[in-house]
Amino acid sequence: MSDELSYHVDGRLVPASEATVSVEDRGFKYGDAAFETCRVYGGTIFGWDAHVDRLDRTCTALSLDHGLSAADLRGRIDATLAANDLQDAYVRLSITRGVQPGKLTPQPAVDPTVVVLVKPLPRGGTEGESVWDGPATVRTVETRRVPDAALPADAKTHNYLNGILARAELRAEDGTIEADEALMCDLDGNVAEGATSNVWFVRDGALQTPSTDGSVLPGITRSIVRELAGDAGVSVSEGSYSIDDLMTADEAFLTNRTWELRPIATLDGAAIGGGPITDRLAWLYDERVERTCYDTD
Amino acid sequence: MSDELSYHVDGRLVPASEATVSVEDRGFKYGDAAFETCRVYGGTIFGWDAHVDRLDRTCTALSLDHGLSAADLRGRIDATLAANDLQDAYVRLSITRGVQPGKLTPQPAVDPTVVVLVKPLPRGGTEGESVWDGPATVRTVETRRVPDAALPADAKTHNYLNGILARAELRAEDGTIEADEALMCDLDGNVAEGATSNVWFVRDGALQTPSTDGSVLPGITRSIVRELAGDAGVSVSEGSYSIDDLMTADEAFLTNRTWELRPIATLDGAAIGGGPITDRLAWLYDERVERTCYDTD
Repeated sequence: MSDELSYHVDGRLVPASEATVSVEDRGFKYGDAAFETCRVYGGTIFGWDAHVDRLDRTCTALSLDHGLSAADLRGRIDATLAANDLQDAYVRLSITRGVQPGKLTPQPAVDPTVVVLVKPLPRGGTEGESVWDGPATVRTVETRRVPDAALPADAKTHNYLNGILARAELRAEDGTIEADEALMCDLDGNVAEGATSNVWFVRDGALQTPSTDGSVLPGITRSIVRELAGDAGVSVSEGSYSIDDLMTADEAFLTNRTWELRPIATLDGAAIGGGPITDRLAWLYDERVERTCYDTD
Repeated sequence: MSDELSYHVDGRLVPASEATVSVEDRGFKYGDAAFETCRVYGGTIFGWDAHVDRLDRTCTALSLDHGLSAADLRGRIDATLAANDLQDAYVRLSITRGVQPGKLTPQPAVDPTVVVLVKPLPRGGTEGESVWDGPATVRTVETRRVPDAALPADAKTHNYLNGILARAELRAEDGTIEADEALMCDLDGNVAEGATSNVWFVRDGALQTPSTDGSVLPGITRSIVRELAGDAGVSVSEGSYSIDDLMTADEAFLTNRTWELRPIATLDGAAIGGGPITDRLAWLYDERVERTCYDTD
């Protein structure tokens, strides 16, 4: 096997350097595409059913009837993992509306372009290691999260400039990056989410996170953490919170597929940090990964 | 010359069927790209300087320092037109942030991907013909224009799902498209713009159009029409308008690079139509195109 990764594009495995899409593909021209970011542990896609569900919701929101079964998509991911001999990996699965006649107006007949990108990641679970170096430094940014009325908040699409502009705000005049994550508020100034993460905090032993009634992506890690907290008897509430609510919290952390749970060290320079509930949930998450993906005898 | 068009991708001319970008290009993964839609009449890009200015503003908004001169970009377009033997054409010029290490956070060092797509169009100017079949049927849609606080309204980017969702609303249950253009309001319910056009109306002899202080793209055709109206002594004002203001107007029309000026036949089924001021401005526009692009002796 060469050192070059193989990707899966439009039905076949190709070396990463030859993995391309047409410049007329709507995924390129307009960001007209749905995607999922998955994490694979020990060869198993963690939370695959939840990814399938969210992908369906995204495609419904985009009226993107790609006609592919979950088994077909899973097969492409599995083939890509096998071709790269990867047991622990990051996977990005994209489905675009492909090339269509005409311009902006989408056509019902879709010949989708399916792309699977993979990268190796360290082992996860109770025996694993974090992909991050330490708790996250977080800064609030001016860029506001796109409201649901303009783009459905629960759709995960290739229109990702909102998060890019948020992250770009983290770069100082001298070029250094001043934080690990950019925290966006909604148009009303309430906490929404990080550029690529959901945000959580603990106050008086209760876990709180912005409601998906607002402009918040329903993260799959978010959903698992919510469930783990419930099982562990930790009170969880969803609501609308100010930056000050977060800044004065007892503990705070971020979640996404890659980071899993990552404590927030500081918000705009003020220390918050993780704590016993963050640690407990992180352990329960690792334990779930271990049991689901590695203890497969 | 074959019937297949040639496009210009990353510095070279290639047959359209071989024109591709990497699946790792940020233009594909995130819609992290600026673009301009130009119209070429008699071999001349109409309003090129205005396109250069707006492209600069878009790239500044995206912190996308591509390092390419306007002359370089113009050269790529001219080469593409020449290769296809096109005198009258639609041109789409895109500049992406290219492939970068890491994930979402953009890096300052950019190796941009530049793509030029072209399509033949009929001759324009006073001797030309419209690209549209008749005045536009327009429908208001539920999708709201992305607010400036989330994505800069004056940036023209590959994040075009907002307009696609607006256009998708025009499709009826039986699959037919119920209108030519989708009219979006801003979050306050005021008229913003069409999915790919600016909107104008005439009341009591005065021309009115939504202000670019709101969530409105500063169209180049819009800017030219504003200037032509001023020169012709037609009063022009920019403001905040309701759907009702538009629906009860004496005349109404849309503008974009391809359509130029296109009267609005109906809005949500109610007749509006063009009229003497729309006709006069359309003539002045054609006359400007004729003088600038065709009368080049």
